[in-house]
Amino acid sequence: MKTIDLRSDTVTKPTPEMLVAMSSAPLGDDVYGDDPTVNELEKLAADKLGKEAALLVPTGTMGNLIAVMAHTSPGQEIILEANSHIYLYEVAGIARIAGVQARTIHGNRGEMLATDIEKSIRSDNIHFPETGLICLENTHNMAGGRVISLENMQEVQTIGQKHGLPLHLDGARIFNAAISLNKDVRKIAESVDSVMFCLSKGLSSPVGSMLVGSSGFIKKSRKLRKMLGGGMRQAGIIAACGIISLNEMTEQLKIDHRNAAVLVESLYETGHFDVSIDNTHTNIVNARIAVEGWTAFELVDAMEKKGVLTNARNEEMIRFVTHKDVSMEEIEEAVIRISQILKS
Amino acid sequence: MKTIDLRSDTVTKPTPEMLVAMSSAPLGDDVYGDDPTVNELEKLAADKLGKEAALLVPTGTMGNLIAVMAHTSPGQEIILEANSHIYLYEVAGIARIAGVQARTIHGNRGEMLATDIEKSIRSDNIHFPETGLICLENTHNMAGGRVISLENMQEVQTIGQKHGLPLHLDGARIFNAAISLNKDVRKIAESVDSVMFCLSKGLSSPVGSMLVGSSGFIKKSRKLRKMLGGGMRQAGIIAACGIISLNEMTEQLKIDHRNAAVLVESLYETGHFDVSIDNTHTNIVNARIAVEGWTAFELVDAMEKKGVLTNARNEEMIRFVTHKDVSMEEIEEAVIRISQILKS
Amino acid sequence: MKTIDLRSDTVTKPTPEMLVAMSSAPLGDDVYGDDPTVNELEKLAADKLGKEAALLVPTGTMGNLIAVMAHTSPGQEIILEANSHIYLYEVAGIARIAGVQARTIHGNRGEMLATDIEKSIRSDNIHFPETGLICLENTHNMAGGRVISLENMQEVQTIGQKHGLPLHLDGARIFNAAISLNKDVRKIAESVDSVMFCLSKGLSSPVGSMLVGSSGFIKKSRKLRKMLGGGMRQAGIIAACGIISLNEMTEQLKIDHRNAAVLVESLYETGHFDVSIDNTHTNIVNARIAVEGWTAFELVDAMEKKGVLTNARNEEMIRFVTHKDVSMEEIEEAVIRISQILKS
Amino acid sequence: MKTIDLRSDTVTKPTPEMLVAMSSAPLGDDVYGDDPTVNELEKLAADKLGKEAALLVPTGTMGNLIAVMAHTSPGQEIILEANSHIYLYEVAGIARIAGVQARTIHGNRGEMLATDIEKSIRSDNIHFPETGLICLENTHNMAGGRVISLENMQEVQTIGQKHGLPLHLDGARIFNAAISLNKDVRKIAESVDSVMFCLSKGLSSPVGSMLVGSSGFIKKSRKLRKMLGGGMRQAGIIAACGIISLNEMTEQLKIDHRNAAVLVESLYETGHFDVSIDNTHTNIVNARIAVEGWTAFELVDAMEKKGVLTNARNEEMIRFVTHKDVSMEEIEEAVIRISQILKS
Repeated sequence: MKTIDLRSDTVTKPTPEMLVAMSSAPLGDDVYGDDPTVNELEKLAADKLGKEAALLVPTGTMGNLIAVMAHTSPGQEIILEANSHIYLYEVAGIARIAGVQARTIHGNRGEMLATDIEKSIRSDNIHFPETGLICLENTHNMAGGRVISLENMQEVQTIGQKHGLPLHLDGARIFNAAISLNKDVRKIAESVDSVMFCLSKGLSSPVGSMLVGSSGFIKKSRKLRKMLGGGMRQAGIIAACGIISLNEMTEQLKIDHRNAAVLVESLYETGHFDVSIDNTHTNIVNARIAVEGWTAFELVDAMEKKGVLTNARNEEMIRFVTHKDVSMEEIEEAVIRISQILKS
Repeated sequence: MKTIDLRSDTVTKPTPEMLVAMSSAPLGDDVYGDDPTVNELEKLAADKLGKEAALLVPTGTMGNLIAVMAHTSPGQEIILEANSHIYLYEVAGIARIAGVQARTIHGNRGEMLATDIEKSIRSDNIHFPETGLICLENTHNMAGGRVISLENMQEVQTIGQKHGLPLHLDGARIFNAAISLNKDVRKIAESVDSVMFCLSKGLSSPVGSMLVGSSGFIKKSRKLRKMLGGGMRQAGIIAACGIISLNEMTEQLKIDHRNAAVLVESLYETGHFDVSIDNTHTNIVNARIAVEGWTAFELVDAMEKKGVLTNARNEEMIRFVTHKDVSMEEIEEAVIRISQILKS
Repeated sequence: MKTIDLRSDTVTKPTPEMLVAMSSAPLGDDVYGDDPTVNELEKLAADKLGKEAALLVPTGTMGNLIAVMAHTSPGQEIILEANSHIYLYEVAGIARIAGVQARTIHGNRGEMLATDIEKSIRSDNIHFPETGLICLENTHNMAGGRVISLENMQEVQTIGQKHGLPLHLDGARIFNAAISLNKDVRKIAESVDSVMFCLSKGLSSPVGSMLVGSSGFIKKSRKLRKMLGGGMRQAGIIAACGIISLNEMTEQLKIDHRNAAVLVESLYETGHFDVSIDNTHTNIVNARIAVEGWTAFELVDAMEKKGVLTNARNEEMIRFVTHKDVSMEEIEEAVIRISQILKS
Repeated sequence: MKTIDLRSDTVTKPTPEMLVAMSSAPLGDDVYGDDPTVNELEKLAADKLGKEAALLVPTGTMGNLIAVMAHTSPGQEIILEANSHIYLYEVAGIARIAGVQARTIHGNRGEMLATDIEKSIRSDNIHFPETGLICLENTHNMAGGRVISLENMQEVQTIGQKHGLPLHLDGARIFNAAISLNKDVRKIAESVDSVMFCLSKGLSSPVGSMLVGSSGFIKKSRKLRKMLGGGMRQAGIIAACGIISLNEMTEQLKIDHRNAAVLVESLYETGHFDVSIDNTHTNIVNARIAVEGWTAFELVDAMEKKGVLTNARNEEMIRFVTHKDVSMEEIEEAVIRISQILKS
């Protein structure tokens, strides 16, 4: 029985082209700025996102952490969505390492009202920390891969500009957002000062994320990367894959989205899940269990025994993620196996 | 025209007895443990609260910060109410200095559901910070001096014990809570591991707050106080007042509460404010402006020109605080002046 | 047998004038800027030191910590003497709270060579933290109350200016330095950007230290004081004593210095100690035990049993500090008791 | 003219075997523990070093930082050599991120006296931070790749055990030390609780370092790696190279050491450098300029124009590092070019 791994698009393996590229790329010591492949990737990433400069980082978590550190000073407060990945899933690095306080706002499926953001910005008062940054997340992971609208992003940008606050976008899956919106990724990036996006999720690189922004921001970020221990040497082996991710893998995401839609439909038809195609914008499916007798944790365990891997969000919700290494046939097979579990 | 200062009970001046006591107290160097008056106060405070030990600190902010540091490790997450004083009014020291992430829960007028707390406790997952502490606030400042019920505190204690989590109480005004509940202050303190309370608010000391808890906790706190720069020398001058606060000033709080009730009634009768005696448990009055044409900030400014000092909570709400240095007559006078402003 | 306490000038009790002043001073809530006595002290301190502004802090440790935080950003490096009080005796607050790395230089009895400082300033290199601050200490506690020369301070100032680095002076005992140099204290302060000095040591206030510097620096420091929990309410009771310290107690330090000289001579005559009048600039005496059979820790314990209190610096050295509350006769009595111990 | 790069062994390119291995290794998501190649490398590294467990990290800087964080609590003090890499070249991460204070000891060419270490351990005193860790570095980079003797390491171990302090070894080049000592690398590792060593220096991997220690230590480290952003996904591409580094590249280091000896001799014969074969234990050569008219920075620049790359340590000293990608012939050619510069 073949294992069908729908835990995350982080599990994607590199493509054959990547394997060739990484073993033939020109290399150098990137701490000295000598790796031509890294330099090429950083230029490419900046161009694609429409920003001045870019930096290769080992992970998205490091990219977000560096961005928070580069935009703020310790003791400031940052505004983020109450279910954002930075707040919930990045080991509280923003508190311990960046030393900033999280000011959380409950969004509507990941989308914060600009007016709520404005109310959360601190006035000048000796009891208050200064507000230092607004963070957005697009697509929004916990909201089931939902796309935040360009209108909302622009409204937040207006608020940020009014109050002199920078905006950072956790765009781990920004290319999924761009495809769903049918816009160039630059259109999303233009509302914010910096973006982190991942090469290692749906874009299939084995390792690596990018941070993009102004030249000054990236210069500061490069030093922070060194402090955190992210300044790798012949990183061209990673960058070679990243170049392929950016140049050739964004089309794959359309297939992932189509497969997610198929998955939603199939799960819906079982009658055992509360899922909605309207809420499924990209490659993430949040499926609420609609039958009695199972917690999500129990069902995830049972599915694992049948070779279907997923993650439980909480007691009631299971997250499925589609990606290059799971075909449409396998998705259908997965739903069959799940049905068998729930019927037994 | 006499100024009537209803900004806070922090503005209370020391009593004549305090002035005598501070200038005649036996003194020593408290860093060496040699100040007999400090030692007496710390013993008295521990006894009154029913805890093993106590520590004098310059301010409530330092007491809360030390408590968070002593109970947690940097990188942990602490659970607190979304409008708690520690989260909103203590300059983000818990992030910059303690290095912990705030996990906030929206309470019902300051009271968090124990079930909401339990849901916020982190499970074991490589992406998650550990939960390290639950903080409560009683009376709850932003909720208008509301008293958190003993039942709620005990429910939270049960959750804390189940998950091996300590509880800290920001009890800046715990004696107000005790009076409102008509209970010994120990009954409130017994649900939690540590309490910070202020000598310098309604209890009228010029300076000083106390942190109480187990002997081990206070030993750790004493060192943290030194690190933060709170280890004062002949602190007996402060402690001498504190002893009077604890022994003689708690009765004054009953008068403060009565005056707050009078204030609510008078404000209500003006027809210009949305206030409620049911929501006024102690000496704080949250009054929402019920007439058009004034923001709270504007009205506070106008009142100041008429010699009535208060603070705006936000655009719509003004906070009044009653205390020893404002008599019932002055409260009535204050309402008259406010009415004149609003009529004009 | 009367106890003769030579542990530190921190043990000094307030004078009768202070006791009167503190109980009659006009008070207000200093967090609101309303305490006239605090405001008077802050103005006085700024004037005496020749700086724009001043801030009352509960302790010298907090004053130094705030200064480091206000001058630097976390992740920077600060240069200080290897035996400085900030580095050795302030619980590593500069690392945990300010987040800066200590770059230490071994001085000649507390005095660092300007050339050594310059060599320690970091160049621009991705591996290096930025240098953010130079700290001096005058008088230098561990060097036995030694005075750092104005020439040395000016040389360091020149280096600081050349590299755009601020200078902070831990001037806990700057008035002792001024008396020893026979200069106005402003002459010492003019070489540096900020000074912390203590009201609570030889100047005999029960509590309190001052931080002085530019208006911008003090504004920043006031907020940091709030974050650390040093924003006290009716702090005028402390400030009232501080005003007397500044206006009336500096002459007392001359007596303290004379008594220290007497102590050195007496200890020298016993033949049991290696002490030198040339090394005794102020009110601190470092006495090395010159007889076999005693560690400093053992001798300090034995002396305590005979009612003479001191501190051991290390295995071989005992520190004596003269101050207002020990008369010349008591010093001579102390030496007699010590001789008896060493003879037996 | 071929560039001869003697800046560092970090510039080494992966071997052909590595290029094959990385593109054919079985991969998985290492955050889920699913990458078989990473798991194999971690097992291999732990075995080679004689420790229970190991963790792959992107860089040596991150490995050292994690080790400091895992062994200590913020606010503690750690003992390290005044010219150690962690203190001088890792961007003060131990202060900003780990929150510990550096207590530095001047070693004799990198080797600290155990008695000096013992004197630096803090006693129990309210003014003192706790000592939390002792760090060693072997080979010692700034001391010219010098090997710290096993005797010294064992003496430090004895002190550590006596005081209950863990020991961490920055063993970036521990295999160079092992070869120079003609001992198994386990003999070096057995004196310490944890070791960081680099796959990416002389061992020629493109990226990656290892942290080894007890299972509990590595478990804690794995979480800290996630917080810092070092938890990579299909890290098997890196691990595949690391396995070859450990199994096949340690012999190369003997050649590097021989080439360093040749370099020393050749530089010495020019008469322009103060170098010593006795001080050259491994693959690093510290060469002091012995002729007038050149600072090290100027000479490094001039050499770069002639295609010889090195780093200046300071005004007087140049560091050369030999490695796999520079042959003995190229070393001799480099010295010829340098001689020409100095003669002109």
